[in-house]
Amino acid sequence: MIRPTHIGILAIDVYLPAQKVLQKDLEETDKCHGKYTQGLGQESMCFTTDREDVVSMALTVVDSLLEKWDIEPNCIGRLEVGTESCIDRSKSIKSHLCRLFQRAGNTSLEGVDCVHGCFGATAAVLNSVAWVESSGWDGRLALVVATDVALYEPESAARATGGCGSVAILIGPEAPLSFDPAWRSCFSMHSDEFCKPAGHQSPYPIVDGPATITQFLKASEECYKTLTRKVVTQSEPRRNTCYHYFNTSGELQNQQFQLITCPLLVYPKIQVGNSYTACVWMGLAGLLEAEAGPSMKMQEGTRLLLFSFGSGVMAAMLGLVCTACTGPSSKYRLQLLSEKIRLRERISKQRIVLPGVYNSASDLVRLSYQVARSYEPASSIESLDPGTYYLDKIDDRACRHYLRKPL
Amino acid sequence: MIRPTHIGILAIDVYLPAQKVLQKDLEETDKCHGKYTQGLGQESMCFTTDREDVVSMALTVVDSLLEKWDIEPNCIGRLEVGTESCIDRSKSIKSHLCRLFQRAGNTSLEGVDCVHGCFGATAAVLNSVAWVESSGWDGRLALVVATDVALYEPESAARATGGCGSVAILIGPEAPLSFDPAWRSCFSMHSDEFCKPAGHQSPYPIVDGPATITQFLKASEECYKTLTRKVVTQSEPRRNTCYHYFNTSGELQNQQFQLITCPLLVYPKIQVGNSYTACVWMGLAGLLEAEAGPSMKMQEGTRLLLFSFGSGVMAAMLGLVCTACTGPSSKYRLQLLSEKIRLRERISKQRIVLPGVYNSASDLVRLSYQVARSYEPASSIESLDPGTYYLDKIDDRACRHYLRKPL
Repeated sequence: MIRPTHIGILAIDVYLPAQKVLQKDLEETDKCHGKYTQGLGQESMCFTTDREDVVSMALTVVDSLLEKWDIEPNCIGRLEVGTESCIDRSKSIKSHLCRLFQRAGNTSLEGVDCVHGCFGATAAVLNSVAWVESSGWDGRLALVVATDVALYEPESAARATGGCGSVAILIGPEAPLSFDPAWRSCFSMHSDEFCKPAGHQSPYPIVDGPATITQFLKASEECYKTLTRKVVTQSEPRRNTCYHYFNTSGELQNQQFQLITCPLLVYPKIQVGNSYTACVWMGLAGLLEAEAGPSMKMQEGTRLLLFSFGSGVMAAMLGLVCTACTGPSSKYRLQLLSEKIRLRERISKQRIVLPGVYNSASDLVRLSYQVARSYEPASSIESLDPGTYYLDKIDDRACRHYLRKPL
Repeated sequence: MIRPTHIGILAIDVYLPAQKVLQKDLEETDKCHGKYTQGLGQESMCFTTDREDVVSMALTVVDSLLEKWDIEPNCIGRLEVGTESCIDRSKSIKSHLCRLFQRAGNTSLEGVDCVHGCFGATAAVLNSVAWVESSGWDGRLALVVATDVALYEPESAARATGGCGSVAILIGPEAPLSFDPAWRSCFSMHSDEFCKPAGHQSPYPIVDGPATITQFLKASEECYKTLTRKVVTQSEPRRNTCYHYFNTSGELQNQQFQLITCPLLVYPKIQVGNSYTACVWMGLAGLLEAEAGPSMKMQEGTRLLLFSFGSGVMAAMLGLVCTACTGPSSKYRLQLLSEKIRLRERISKQRIVLPGVYNSASDLVRLSYQVARSYEPASSIESLDPGTYYLDKIDDRACRHYLRKPL
């Protein structure tokens, strides 16, 4: 088999629930004017009711990507999920997604769930890229799904830093946006600053915010140092300008490269809130939608530098490069990729609700997590868009049953 | 960089807690003579007290492997964990293991936790093999850790099918036991027959045993069919005889190959019980210890066929082949690998306790899971062997603190 080249992102899609709460409304309720909008720089926060969860959001975004790109399910040979919001310690979210493929007769999908706070999906992407390069590759494409719900304890300081969403990333050779193995560094360290104990009776994380900021700065510095060392010692010519994306507000010293921090990259984060493992990939989707479209600011050779950070600590700095697509996968062109994302449209159409509605819905989410079996969701399915998967019920054996709202 | 060859298992190590309960004693307590020994074919079941868990067992086995093989921690570039018994939904078990590497200055370990019932570690092994083959490989070795605790509800039918343990698998090029990419097939399907809801107030699984047997038979048949098709259409010559290992009692029609079912392969399972994702790799360690030692029944060219099955469903059939080691990693020879496992010795030295002791210890395990923070383990550390990691306490922020019993 000929070794594939330019392995990277062929297509990307994002799903967000249909409702959000405004941060300025949360400020009013919490009597802290400017704290969330100016202090945290957030405009709104997306949330689920008890009708949606990490599984339903993953189902919705996978079906959306397959439909938008008219992908035959048998073309996929690997499916893995990145998350830090698992609802079962044994049954993977990937297991639920298999439904979408076995209806077309595809029962051979490698990959499982990759779990690590804010980093699981990045690990899954790297796994999938390596799979395409490996001798075990069967010539099909890989699909990575990032899905998370960030929900913090009511009346806690972190409450307004929630969010949710899912991203599907199609990975294969001859990609318009490919990973450059030379631009890759990672940082790993033991740290206890963010926990979600499985046996705990609530779904809320236990957080130490200041420690996370310290770890973030350390990880970004270490990744950047390693990367600089690697890239500088390369003999190949390199371009000195690249977009970069950091999933919090941290900043680096730019000694070796001229880095352009692009506000478009953080647009989804500002509007959606924190979607954990999906966050950095949603940011990338936002950039591609804004910059790789008809105006074509992103061109062949344009570089992106992603920094993905997870509490715990796992972090990676990854270089991507825009490539012209002339290979067999040239269906996946950068401009088309940009056009099909439609994240801005999705965000603009989200229904704005008041904090009271958010609190009631989130309390049901907490309840459904605690009850864990024999649960009938109380929220209406009226507000769901056509094509959205939703939780129908959790039966007495704790099996979760999902349905899809007709298109 | 030159592409590495013969990627596979360089070394393997197993850790089991120091105590077990005999199945015949459980039969007496449960008044069901022969049910567990003759019906399930089990002799004993290994268990943890509230001093040990998936994290401590992973710490112990990693340190044991590094020490036995005198491996410098900086030689490892990837570390991932396979489990279905996570105790935190965000902080990975891998995060805890980073401690063992950062003390030597190694803060660049790719990989996170791979979660799927009974299959997570197999997915992790395949990820690590692909990483070594990928352009992202940095020339270092990969370490996969399987760690699980199988604990079922008191007085349930499944109670006697528990078990626990951890396995560390060192992966790299020029391995004495390498994966053959042509001998690889997988099966994936949605199935609800085994769940462990994260929000559930108990750590026990909800199981449908008969459904699992049906899924197992289907998965083994499908994997075998795919493999036969792949191997038969290969142009390369192949050997027709191989050991095979199946992690339950299922059996296949051997139309294409003469398969030798080796009782040695199931020896750890009979003695230890079910260690979930670690089970198939513990079986492999048992075989290597028995057959690859000085008597050298396993020789260059000997093939192994592993079938790894996980409820949910994820399954894979993987071919391994014994190769002569002449490359840079020839420190890792098959015979040495066999000698260093010492699993039989470990099993023979385990302390046998009565069912009452097992029930009390397991109840503390349940309690520590439920409490989730501000927990002081009640079990003594007397019975732990030197070098064993143990839970010192869970603090009020749910951080789990581990210590090591001095060597």
